[in-house]
Amino acid sequence: MFPKTEEVKVMRDPVHGYIHVEYQVIWDVINSRWMQRLRRIHQLGGANMVYHTADHTRFSHSLGVYEIVRRMVSEVPDIDQALSEEEKVTVMLAGLLHDIGHGPYSHAFESISNRSHEAYTCDIIIQDPEIRTILESCQKGLAEEVADVIRHKSANPLLPQLVSSQLDADRMDYLLRDAYFTGTKYGEFDIERVLRTLRVSDGKIVVKESGTYAAENYIMARYHMYWQVYYHPVARAYECGLLKLFLRLKDLMEEGKMPKTIPAFTPLLKQEKLSLDEYFALDECACNYGFELLCKAEDPIVRDLASRLLNRNLFEYQENNAAGNRKIRALLKQKGFDPRYYFGKDEARQRPYVPYSRTGSEGIWVRMHTGEILELSQASNIVNALVHGQERSDDRVFFPKEILENK
Amino acid sequence: MFPKTEEVKVMRDPVHGYIHVEYQVIWDVINSRWMQRLRRIHQLGGANMVYHTADHTRFSHSLGVYEIVRRMVSEVPDIDQALSEEEKVTVMLAGLLHDIGHGPYSHAFESISNRSHEAYTCDIIIQDPEIRTILESCQKGLAEEVADVIRHKSANPLLPQLVSSQLDADRMDYLLRDAYFTGTKYGEFDIERVLRTLRVSDGKIVVKESGTYAAENYIMARYHMYWQVYYHPVARAYECGLLKLFLRLKDLMEEGKMPKTIPAFTPLLKQEKLSLDEYFALDECACNYGFELLCKAEDPIVRDLASRLLNRNLFEYQENNAAGNRKIRALLKQKGFDPRYYFGKDEARQRPYVPYSRTGSEGIWVRMHTGEILELSQASNIVNALVHGQERSDDRVFFPKEILENK
Amino acid sequence: MFPKTEEVKVMRDPVHGYIHVEYQVIWDVINSRWMQRLRRIHQLGGANMVYHTADHTRFSHSLGVYEIVRRMVSEVPDIDQALSEEEKVTVMLAGLLHDIGHGPYSHAFESISNRSHEAYTCDIIIQDPEIRTILESCQKGLAEEVADVIRHKSANPLLPQLVSSQLDADRMDYLLRDAYFTGTKYGEFDIERVLRTLRVSDGKIVVKESGTYAAENYIMARYHMYWQVYYHPVARAYECGLLKLFLRLKDLMEEGKMPKTIPAFTPLLKQEKLSLDEYFALDECACNYGFELLCKAEDPIVRDLASRLLNRNLFEYQENNAAGNRKIRALLKQKGFDPRYYFGKDEARQRPYVPYSRTGSEGIWVRMHTGEILELSQASNIVNALVHGQERSDDRVFFPKEILENK
Amino acid sequence: MFPKTEEVKVMRDPVHGYIHVEYQVIWDVINSRWMQRLRRIHQLGGANMVYHTADHTRFSHSLGVYEIVRRMVSEVPDIDQALSEEEKVTVMLAGLLHDIGHGPYSHAFESISNRSHEAYTCDIIIQDPEIRTILESCQKGLAEEVADVIRHKSANPLLPQLVSSQLDADRMDYLLRDAYFTGTKYGEFDIERVLRTLRVSDGKIVVKESGTYAAENYIMARYHMYWQVYYHPVARAYECGLLKLFLRLKDLMEEGKMPKTIPAFTPLLKQEKLSLDEYFALDECACNYGFELLCKAEDPIVRDLASRLLNRNLFEYQENNAAGNRKIRALLKQKGFDPRYYFGKDEARQRPYVPYSRTGSEGIWVRMHTGEILELSQASNIVNALVHGQERSDDRVFFPKEILENK
Repeated sequence: MFPKTEEVKVMRDPVHGYIHVEYQVIWDVINSRWMQRLRRIHQLGGANMVYHTADHTRFSHSLGVYEIVRRMVSEVPDIDQALSEEEKVTVMLAGLLHDIGHGPYSHAFESISNRSHEAYTCDIIIQDPEIRTILESCQKGLAEEVADVIRHKSANPLLPQLVSSQLDADRMDYLLRDAYFTGTKYGEFDIERVLRTLRVSDGKIVVKESGTYAAENYIMARYHMYWQVYYHPVARAYECGLLKLFLRLKDLMEEGKMPKTIPAFTPLLKQEKLSLDEYFALDECACNYGFELLCKAEDPIVRDLASRLLNRNLFEYQENNAAGNRKIRALLKQKGFDPRYYFGKDEARQRPYVPYSRTGSEGIWVRMHTGEILELSQASNIVNALVHGQERSDDRVFFPKEILENK
Repeated sequence: MFPKTEEVKVMRDPVHGYIHVEYQVIWDVINSRWMQRLRRIHQLGGANMVYHTADHTRFSHSLGVYEIVRRMVSEVPDIDQALSEEEKVTVMLAGLLHDIGHGPYSHAFESISNRSHEAYTCDIIIQDPEIRTILESCQKGLAEEVADVIRHKSANPLLPQLVSSQLDADRMDYLLRDAYFTGTKYGEFDIERVLRTLRVSDGKIVVKESGTYAAENYIMARYHMYWQVYYHPVARAYECGLLKLFLRLKDLMEEGKMPKTIPAFTPLLKQEKLSLDEYFALDECACNYGFELLCKAEDPIVRDLASRLLNRNLFEYQENNAAGNRKIRALLKQKGFDPRYYFGKDEARQRPYVPYSRTGSEGIWVRMHTGEILELSQASNIVNALVHGQERSDDRVFFPKEILENK
Repeated sequence: MFPKTEEVKVMRDPVHGYIHVEYQVIWDVINSRWMQRLRRIHQLGGANMVYHTADHTRFSHSLGVYEIVRRMVSEVPDIDQALSEEEKVTVMLAGLLHDIGHGPYSHAFESISNRSHEAYTCDIIIQDPEIRTILESCQKGLAEEVADVIRHKSANPLLPQLVSSQLDADRMDYLLRDAYFTGTKYGEFDIERVLRTLRVSDGKIVVKESGTYAAENYIMARYHMYWQVYYHPVARAYECGLLKLFLRLKDLMEEGKMPKTIPAFTPLLKQEKLSLDEYFALDECACNYGFELLCKAEDPIVRDLASRLLNRNLFEYQENNAAGNRKIRALLKQKGFDPRYYFGKDEARQRPYVPYSRTGSEGIWVRMHTGEILELSQASNIVNALVHGQERSDDRVFFPKEILENK
Repeated sequence: MFPKTEEVKVMRDPVHGYIHVEYQVIWDVINSRWMQRLRRIHQLGGANMVYHTADHTRFSHSLGVYEIVRRMVSEVPDIDQALSEEEKVTVMLAGLLHDIGHGPYSHAFESISNRSHEAYTCDIIIQDPEIRTILESCQKGLAEEVADVIRHKSANPLLPQLVSSQLDADRMDYLLRDAYFTGTKYGEFDIERVLRTLRVSDGKIVVKESGTYAAENYIMARYHMYWQVYYHPVARAYECGLLKLFLRLKDLMEEGKMPKTIPAFTPLLKQEKLSLDEYFALDECACNYGFELLCKAEDPIVRDLASRLLNRNLFEYQENNAAGNRKIRALLKQKGFDPRYYFGKDEARQRPYVPYSRTGSEGIWVRMHTGEILELSQASNIVNALVHGQERSDDRVFFPKEILENK
């Protein structure tokens, strides 16, 4: 029913060895312009300011998620047997397309545009003429079904679990991929063993008891990657700079003094919903070019903030506390920096694993040799300790290093 | 004399473990805007169309070359002893800055602009106010000395050999780095052993006899990387597309019909020497944004060629031969494609190692246990066989795949 | 004072790249017969019955520990400055020699011989004519000084910390080495970062705050290696078989029916202190040959137990509980197996990290950016959670699988 | 027909990730005492004297060869389709058992016993009661069929090609495995690509044209491993020592003065065919124990040679040439060493690839995109150059280093 490519297509990938494609519809989606656009969106906007080799893109991550889903539905016997071919193709497509609506600089832009990338993702899958045509001409209704996996509305609850849950292809790929491209070992975990010990019980993905160590290992990988990479203060300093630049632009726009830059920034600043064509144009190349234009703006604050981003002259940071903040505010004033644009706060908090989250996504389940199914923190002393330990947080303020002496 | 940073700065790098910086002048150059601009130039423009993870940049390569030079001058006893501190700092800076003048899309742009990146490199080092100030305020004359290493005019002939010769830090880094980021193993060779067996004899870098295998291995790594990555026909198809788009733009410009795009393309097409400011602006982000604008141009050929680059709808290719070419030309005519813009030729040729090159750069030297110094092809049967074997070439024509049936 | 080798000697090692030797005394000790004997003692007796590639020896581990100590005393500035050349050579020798007294099959033999390998280690260093001569002819008193490091009696308390503490070269090497040779990733941690963040404060080795993640990672590596490798039930089944065979031999000896085997087993069974010559002969080759002879013994129990070890026909295992044990005992009786030789118990317990141990060895110390020195569990939420979480244990009984149906 | 295990059994292996077993007959053979005996035979007897981590055994190599054959017959579509289930099981067993007749210390013992390990291999498969029973009770005639694959007499000529040809599972495993356990990179090649490009044409295994680079890479890996590992002069010095010890024992035996050692040496020295039971007992543990006994022999030459092997006090070596040899002979005489036992010669020669060998095993075949089938040296310039280049040889003499001054 689902046509295959003449022979299996393979793309070399350092994380998975090869990405294997055997369905024509997968191949066609990969070659669509929206997928190719992901080559112009970094996976780790901000963190590549700390890890200079972290230049990998949402495109390679998307292929990686697809590949893990493909392995799950073909190499894990329980999942293989539980799904029809249509469901398998649907969930592989969902893995491939789950980030198609991602904008530049990861999550920082979402707070500017005030619209989640998941919302754009479903819009693109359902409305973009090219992708819609590829999917619908393959199977009537496929576009909606793929979107349903992403918005957790599939008839079969197994499908969303593969793509987006506490132990899903998305996280597995990004931990491994981000570890590889940053050069840290922290994100490594034993994906082979995780895949080998996956089972299906009562419509739920579970890990066999003998996979408990691998699951613990994966939780620890998450924990370490968050603090060492994703929440690294330099990455957050970059994001703070982005937010401050857009705040200044917004203020100027309201005063009718918007400087010359790329047109796509305007609807973004107005927090209007961008058309798909406008959104398409808003990749990181366009943004960087926009910043380059802003480096020549009349407004000195815009010029300064834009050039800080481009030339990696990022904000300095320190712990958020009243005494320290007072001192910084005094220095800012003294050196003539407007704190509205030159003083930022950001608190990162994380618990490596939360058994039951508010979003309804459940924990990781372990099937003991007795047949009993336990939530991971009940099966693992280590995870239990983490769940009941103190939540870790890192609360910082950001400011230009020029206010400090000797810098 | 050369001030050091407060403590050794390290940057994690998956190829070398860490990049170590202990001189303030190195650190300041890394933080200059021209160096940071290299974050927006891919190391392998074109080849990342084949290898989807090859998103690494000239910035990380430049750090890698610097690191190898740093190890050479500090860990290879003969080199350590042969050089003064000033020479060491100079050659490390030359390693760091050797690609500072690189434009977008690797070597393809050089043929459009008709000016080599090396020429820009020396201009930037000597003329850019920021870099010049960093260097000259550290040591009078340092900018010229660094440039001299790059243009092979150093008083001490050892310095250029470290950065640019048949067995230099530049090639060592790019082989290892490109192998890592493409995920191929072909570029791997035993750099630890190469470094351990380097010696200085009569002002020349030589390899001890016991390093011959490692040198053979390195030559084979070069050979395989050229054919598997750098000369991959898909990478060349991308470059062919670039050349065709610029050819069309040039023709339109001469007709006074230049479409709207980024301003920096104009002097490029006129083959005028760009000012450093114009050249600075010409990174890959700007080019991609320029192509995005061209996707909306009035001219259908420009629109088509620009969108092929952005959306990776690249040219098809086959062997260059008279009969095949006649057939393609007929098909192009039939489908209405102008061969001036839709038919390209490219021949890649390579010999993995040439004992004596025309540019005066010499071969690799091996010091036998007898003390005798042999050129590598005399010391190694394998390399000797390669030198006297047939040169390998790959001669292709490129054209839109739409002219073929079933595609 | 301490003569160096003509040039630095290197031995390739997959875990550390190379082992580097520059002192003649180190080189001479490596070439001594007691060191070479360690080539005939596996690092993981028992665990190589589970992990079929875990054939690495105490010899390569000893070189690895030496190499880490060498890096500590030369690459960690604080340690480099805190120690004299004599102390450096002493502690490198202690790292190299710390396992010289190890007998076959890891710790199982210690419980048979009732004498710790550390006691033999000091005896060998002080009394073996070859090693003593190498050390004493290098520096008067060196043998005692090296032994003092191992028995924690050094004048400088820094020395024993490098070789044997909660964060020492011994554990660092075995985690990395056992991970490499078993093919598990669990033991990997970022040794480069650990070494880079080591400092000396008040005569104590501490980790800088920025190394906390690496220390956490190392604690987790320990935890996982214990449960996945060292305490694997199959490894413990092998050790149980060893103990049972020696129990039977002891019983027979007391009855005057000792079967023919290698002579060295006799003093072992009598729990007499072996002479160094007797102990030297007792490597794993000799033991295996002894077991081969026992496979032809008259006593059927000896024959059976010896052949189980050699041919890897190991005991089956299950949880230790009263009901299960009753069932096993009944089956043993039914099938004619004497439970004295065919029923074993073993409980493995481990806490991944204990802040203050009874042996007086202290915890891991972290120097915060404020200068304050905290014990690791105070500096790390993760480790704190582990310390206060439940101790993990695994309590098993072992018996011949032949008593179970269908096996 | 061929019963499967309850679930797929896996064994972790650092070279292949996991070894997968799904047939009961494979599992039973792995657990046989002859297979387990291979745990006591090193893969690289001699070379582990140079590479101190090369302690891997014929057991893990045999599992690796089995795993590659398993992948060939299940993952390469052409092979999968060309073979019946019986043929697949047969050839997997042949891969597993191909080294079952290997004696200690690799090939050195063959020249002592004057009988090839292949001859023993077939004897064991056909005659050993345990293995024969496992095979025959699975399928009548299976033992002979497995032996036929090994002795190149299979009805289907494809089967021996998988196990033993110029591009076979045996070589692929040992190159990768020996590279991993020595820690050299030389033996690495892209096995994934080789497997992906294998095809069957006219009953022959061929490589698709796009696999040519991978095949070149594999040939180079062979070349480098031979010279860097297998033919390393220190490994050959160890083998020379072995041969000299056995020569002395033989001379003594003829004089009726055979010293006390393990009984199995006697038939070996008499070059009698050992019974399977005698051969079984002759593992490396027994040999080492035999050498330990010989260290206490009355004959000083035996004592000396045996202790050189055990304590790695190996022969020195230099180039074989008349002038040098005369000097050595004079020194030997002067120091009282009998050259019959203290002077050895050994010439290693190798061509990395021979298109047509005398043993009738053919070259590697490449299927071009035109359909034409070329021998590898015709398809690859590099291999062609190697085939027509000079054969490399290394001709050495070995002698005790005590005759040299300053050693």
